[in-house]
Amino acid sequence: MVYATADGSALARLRIGMVGGGRNAFIGAVHRFAMRLDDKIALVAGALSSDPENAAASAADLGLAPERSYADYRAMARAEAARPDGIEAVVIVTPNHLHAPIATAFLEAGIDVICDKPLSTTLDEARALVELTAARRRKLLVTLNNTGYAMVRQAREMVASGELGRIVAVHAAYVQDWLTQPIDADGQKQAEWRTDPARAGQSAVLADIGVHAFNLACFVSGQQAETVAADLFTAVPGRRLDDNANVLVRWTGGARGTILASQTSPGHYNDLSVRIYGEKAGLEWRGTEPEALRFSPFGEDSRTIIRGGHGSGAAARRVSRMPAAHPEGYIEAFANLYRDAAEIIQAHRAGAAIDPALSALVPDVTDGARGVQFVAAAVESNAAGGAWTSARFG
Amino acid sequence: MVYATADGSALARLRIGMVGGGRNAFIGAVHRFAMRLDDKIALVAGALSSDPENAAASAADLGLAPERSYADYRAMARAEAARPDGIEAVVIVTPNHLHAPIATAFLEAGIDVICDKPLSTTLDEARALVELTAARRRKLLVTLNNTGYAMVRQAREMVASGELGRIVAVHAAYVQDWLTQPIDADGQKQAEWRTDPARAGQSAVLADIGVHAFNLACFVSGQQAETVAADLFTAVPGRRLDDNANVLVRWTGGARGTILASQTSPGHYNDLSVRIYGEKAGLEWRGTEPEALRFSPFGEDSRTIIRGGHGSGAAARRVSRMPAAHPEGYIEAFANLYRDAAEIIQAHRAGAAIDPALSALVPDVTDGARGVQFVAAAVESNAAGGAWTSARFG
Amino acid sequence: MVYATADGSALARLRIGMVGGGRNAFIGAVHRFAMRLDDKIALVAGALSSDPENAAASAADLGLAPERSYADYRAMARAEAARPDGIEAVVIVTPNHLHAPIATAFLEAGIDVICDKPLSTTLDEARALVELTAARRRKLLVTLNNTGYAMVRQAREMVASGELGRIVAVHAAYVQDWLTQPIDADGQKQAEWRTDPARAGQSAVLADIGVHAFNLACFVSGQQAETVAADLFTAVPGRRLDDNANVLVRWTGGARGTILASQTSPGHYNDLSVRIYGEKAGLEWRGTEPEALRFSPFGEDSRTIIRGGHGSGAAARRVSRMPAAHPEGYIEAFANLYRDAAEIIQAHRAGAAIDPALSALVPDVTDGARGVQFVAAAVESNAAGGAWTSARFG
Amino acid sequence: MVYATADGSALARLRIGMVGGGRNAFIGAVHRFAMRLDDKIALVAGALSSDPENAAASAADLGLAPERSYADYRAMARAEAARPDGIEAVVIVTPNHLHAPIATAFLEAGIDVICDKPLSTTLDEARALVELTAARRRKLLVTLNNTGYAMVRQAREMVASGELGRIVAVHAAYVQDWLTQPIDADGQKQAEWRTDPARAGQSAVLADIGVHAFNLACFVSGQQAETVAADLFTAVPGRRLDDNANVLVRWTGGARGTILASQTSPGHYNDLSVRIYGEKAGLEWRGTEPEALRFSPFGEDSRTIIRGGHGSGAAARRVSRMPAAHPEGYIEAFANLYRDAAEIIQAHRAGAAIDPALSALVPDVTDGARGVQFVAAAVESNAAGGAWTSARFG
Repeated sequence: MVYATADGSALARLRIGMVGGGRNAFIGAVHRFAMRLDDKIALVAGALSSDPENAAASAADLGLAPERSYADYRAMARAEAARPDGIEAVVIVTPNHLHAPIATAFLEAGIDVICDKPLSTTLDEARALVELTAARRRKLLVTLNNTGYAMVRQAREMVASGELGRIVAVHAAYVQDWLTQPIDADGQKQAEWRTDPARAGQSAVLADIGVHAFNLACFVSGQQAETVAADLFTAVPGRRLDDNANVLVRWTGGARGTILASQTSPGHYNDLSVRIYGEKAGLEWRGTEPEALRFSPFGEDSRTIIRGGHGSGAAARRVSRMPAAHPEGYIEAFANLYRDAAEIIQAHRAGAAIDPALSALVPDVTDGARGVQFVAAAVESNAAGGAWTSARFG
Repeated sequence: MVYATADGSALARLRIGMVGGGRNAFIGAVHRFAMRLDDKIALVAGALSSDPENAAASAADLGLAPERSYADYRAMARAEAARPDGIEAVVIVTPNHLHAPIATAFLEAGIDVICDKPLSTTLDEARALVELTAARRRKLLVTLNNTGYAMVRQAREMVASGELGRIVAVHAAYVQDWLTQPIDADGQKQAEWRTDPARAGQSAVLADIGVHAFNLACFVSGQQAETVAADLFTAVPGRRLDDNANVLVRWTGGARGTILASQTSPGHYNDLSVRIYGEKAGLEWRGTEPEALRFSPFGEDSRTIIRGGHGSGAAARRVSRMPAAHPEGYIEAFANLYRDAAEIIQAHRAGAAIDPALSALVPDVTDGARGVQFVAAAVESNAAGGAWTSARFG
Repeated sequence: MVYATADGSALARLRIGMVGGGRNAFIGAVHRFAMRLDDKIALVAGALSSDPENAAASAADLGLAPERSYADYRAMARAEAARPDGIEAVVIVTPNHLHAPIATAFLEAGIDVICDKPLSTTLDEARALVELTAARRRKLLVTLNNTGYAMVRQAREMVASGELGRIVAVHAAYVQDWLTQPIDADGQKQAEWRTDPARAGQSAVLADIGVHAFNLACFVSGQQAETVAADLFTAVPGRRLDDNANVLVRWTGGARGTILASQTSPGHYNDLSVRIYGEKAGLEWRGTEPEALRFSPFGEDSRTIIRGGHGSGAAARRVSRMPAAHPEGYIEAFANLYRDAAEIIQAHRAGAAIDPALSALVPDVTDGARGVQFVAAAVESNAAGGAWTSARFG
Repeated sequence: MVYATADGSALARLRIGMVGGGRNAFIGAVHRFAMRLDDKIALVAGALSSDPENAAASAADLGLAPERSYADYRAMARAEAARPDGIEAVVIVTPNHLHAPIATAFLEAGIDVICDKPLSTTLDEARALVELTAARRRKLLVTLNNTGYAMVRQAREMVASGELGRIVAVHAAYVQDWLTQPIDADGQKQAEWRTDPARAGQSAVLADIGVHAFNLACFVSGQQAETVAADLFTAVPGRRLDDNANVLVRWTGGARGTILASQTSPGHYNDLSVRIYGEKAGLEWRGTEPEALRFSPFGEDSRTIIRGGHGSGAAARRVSRMPAAHPEGYIEAFANLYRDAAEIIQAHRAGAAIDPALSALVPDVTDGARGVQFVAAAVESNAAGGAWTSARFG
């Protein structure tokens, strides 16, 4: 279906397929809400489950043509690559350990990739994906989705424009309560695979939520981790992987800070936050109140910048659908990322130049690899008694 | 397109048309975001603007088939009623004064109606619509959209289940700042028609936002206004209609309270709130933090119930897409209303029974008329020096 | 005891006596905390209870000389007036109905008065006190104590300096929960007299807390009530007086607004708030977070001014003891009022000129009478079916 | 002056002297506000400044008898020890490096000591004070004053009573902005000595505020630091000592956590906070809103316990002067500590038994020494590249 865009240009919706995300899955549905919101993406194929029955039923739920519902992602990559109306990009929403092999299969088939975080469970896989993406000149984007929030983008814009001056400190945290009790031992599906080293990787808490806090800190501050010193621990006896991480970070630009992650903190459901301090001002953002950005120029009282309000800048306005205080939330942020990802992928496939300012807004394979590197460095530091360990990727 | 629903049943997407909502309109786009989210509705026709050029361009933007883009709502009602694949329902998102005539045209054509608030600008029109809807055995639903918020529904459920005991006080308010300056006199489009008696009705502030506060109070408390005593005023010299309203309310169940509305209050963008007190507990909800419901059982400290969290009840869970603290917002609430509206209309058209519990969740023509009655009563009371005036509809 | 002040001048502590405030009383102890904080006041005499035994024991608790503990306020006024070291001022902290007779006795004895609110239970008494104070050229100050908060004073200063422009709306509320259940019927002492018409006056809720909200609105806005339209009601069956009041107010300067008071609202302990909107900016203050003032210049995002912080003005700095975010609270605000009251009374007794800017900070007999007038007007309006009723004093 | 207490017993006010705290000093005045509030303490002597002129003038300000104003603390210790009405305790409010020598002088003179934090600038001094206090059987109490907050005590009580279950994580932070710019280089008095190694000790930020966060964490959790790994840094070029500290902590009971301290974070004036998570519940308290304690039992929504409110326990009620939502603040908390300190010292001097539950509420010389040990361990860890370093005292 081709239709005119608001600015008059004709634009086809991006044709997308999904691997994972069948019935009973969690994050796949989130991706679909996000894809739908702006009507720029058409979900037309899927290998929605490794269980053939679930795959077929899930495809029917979503109105996929039966012949484009696949039981196997390799078959899907082959078949879709061969179709004239085949998918242009695939979304990977499986458990962590499958991200790399699936991404590899589609990249090799010439299909661009949108992959959930973490990019992979091992650093070797991450490095290989960076190389493969470059070699094949394809796009691999990672749904480190908090970068889609309007006020996160405003924060990034304010830092980049120098409103904070030299950055001195960068802290981020992601705190949850859902693993406070040993539900993984009791067979709860989401908990079970996330705490299994074979599917989650070397660290459960960092792979699952720590990478979000880390990426958020990087995205807003414009800095990367130089070295880390980590204390990882398991609060719940018998759990196979860590569920808490306290990590000291020295950032590339000279700032210091912390990345904290916990899945056993009653009182916090999904409490993601970032605080950045410069010599001229401080900024705070919290995912539980995503519409607000607390901005504190030194020497003045703090102000609360509201998305869509008087203090919203260009970066926030670009992704605002609603007026101020008609709250946008998690799905809208995710949809912002999808809209930008679709634009990048379409431009890339059309051979058009991509605005670097746009590219910088959507985490790519290198950003994903940095997250994997961060996890690996923290695990290594923890094993070495908290020694400062390099976290630079590349 | 027919596809299987999650529970295995086959269900067509509801075919819908839209009147109003072309380029540069505000609320039409909001409705479209809401329709898309759950993929249960197909927008297939429209008379998107009274300006033919805008109508056509807007239809193209949305991928409507050119032959189903109409320059005139009457032509649309006729043509769609005649098509075998014609729309099942129309969404009306025009200025207030057109709601009643457009709704009338579609109801008479046998097409169900989803109408933005207020239902009409006069009480006579509202009464006529109630009668017409009944006479034609059609559905006319009103997008008093705050009823779609998960925690508003939870609040209603808690009141209904007796957790607050006998209700003693009900207060609601809707406070904005956007008309603090005379932008209507300067020709700002949204401000201009909303302060024009010919298009907005007898009261600007009550028709535009007061009805939201009023409906929210009714919906949560389960009560209606018995009498009102109102002080309406215009803060900005020269404005043609009021921009502030302070209204005392005596509710049917014996409770008392206030409905406040202001469009000239710096510091508030869209600050909708409701507070309900019973002999056993109090409840507060605020649209700027829609995911939280403050619940205060007398004799205990207040707790903050978070959508999706440990204290979420059945009514909230039914409309939760995301886990707790992955915030849902205005669009999601609107989408909840659309999903329920679609279910009601489809069942009605199929001749199936509609669960009264579901019907009660979606404001209908009577609820819309109650809002118009509330505005009329407040205007009358104000004119009569604040005398207590009946606000009962029917 | 005479000692040097910080600026080198010699200053005696103000000699004060107290009527009421014995063991088991509530507000007397608050006054004593406030008097002590700055060490500018010496409590040297008292008629602390009408029960002689309680009076003596209470005096001993406080280290009063036994001969200056009186069983009767009239005896105290006579005796203290006759002593060369007699009290310079008396503090009245009895139930409401005794305020006027006690104040009268001390004024007639040439002793200045600091009286708790409300000034009196009848308007006639209030008028008589205004006249008597003027006739005797004495000071009668009223501990409408919220005027002592640093950020309330900053708010007043900002309004007075024009930062809000012309004032358009003024709202205040005082919401409590403590009378949610019929504890007055069960004999709870504080509840019992406050709901007794003979001791509390015509309205319980307005005399007890409504006058605080009203005074706060007046103090900050610099306006007085012109007319009111009131809905008073009793939430708890069988209670002898009202426990809820919703009052519409038209202010002298043309602004409109509301004064709400409730003692039956679970979730609110002592929730006093004021919101003021001008054509240029809005201000909000809340007694539960007294260190913060929310300031919203139109066209900018809201900022939170913190006492002692970068945005604190002269009025707040003058009464700040602690740096920002070392919170000051209710006692400190009360102490600010006492310090200013003592300075006014000492200057007055010394025949010195009193800075009008200082006088304006401490509610006097006229301010107290305005509160009584407000209560009387609301009661009258309520009885007259909510008719607009003059609330101007004098 | 001897007077009867509320319970009928006769009790003299504790006679106290002060070293430091003259004109232009900061914390001395805070101590005096705290002493006055409950009228249980008489300030009767002082060596208020090392500058004799300032000392005399400051003493006159406070109404001290001239002969009890000393220019030298050693002279004061000697003279007061010799007077029959000499001071029973001395309060030390000088720069850090003088704490130990002054405390030593008074302890040796048989006078009990109330010392501001940190106990000393070196660990050797701290150890010597612990020994001296024991040898002389005297009391040395440390005004780690956050332990005086009602809701901090409630938090401690809840942890101790097992409401959180086994403690898993303990985090505390103290964040300020006042050293964001190089005001120490510009000669600001408070900044100048606090960043001078000779007067502040090895770490500025930890000695000044880090010890508060650390003590708060210990007091509430009932745990001590086992080992620490620290990253200390100086945000402002040229500053002589650190102004930021990020410290990982492993606690004695097996919990992990962090202590963060910063003096260069715009947006935070005095932002002290503690978060404690157990296997059954979480608790959060923040010094900027000291009246509230957020309590989150796992499996329920969070509730906000308000001092004086329905959920206040015995520990909070014991130190509540005001009803709920008449906020108490920093001075009241400090006064709570003073009232308990006075009771401990008076009982000790009278040879009476001291309730261990009371003793545990007031930090003593060992608690002070633990803070010094914490600072020393963090400095050592930082110097050793963040190696885990023992922080156990004794």
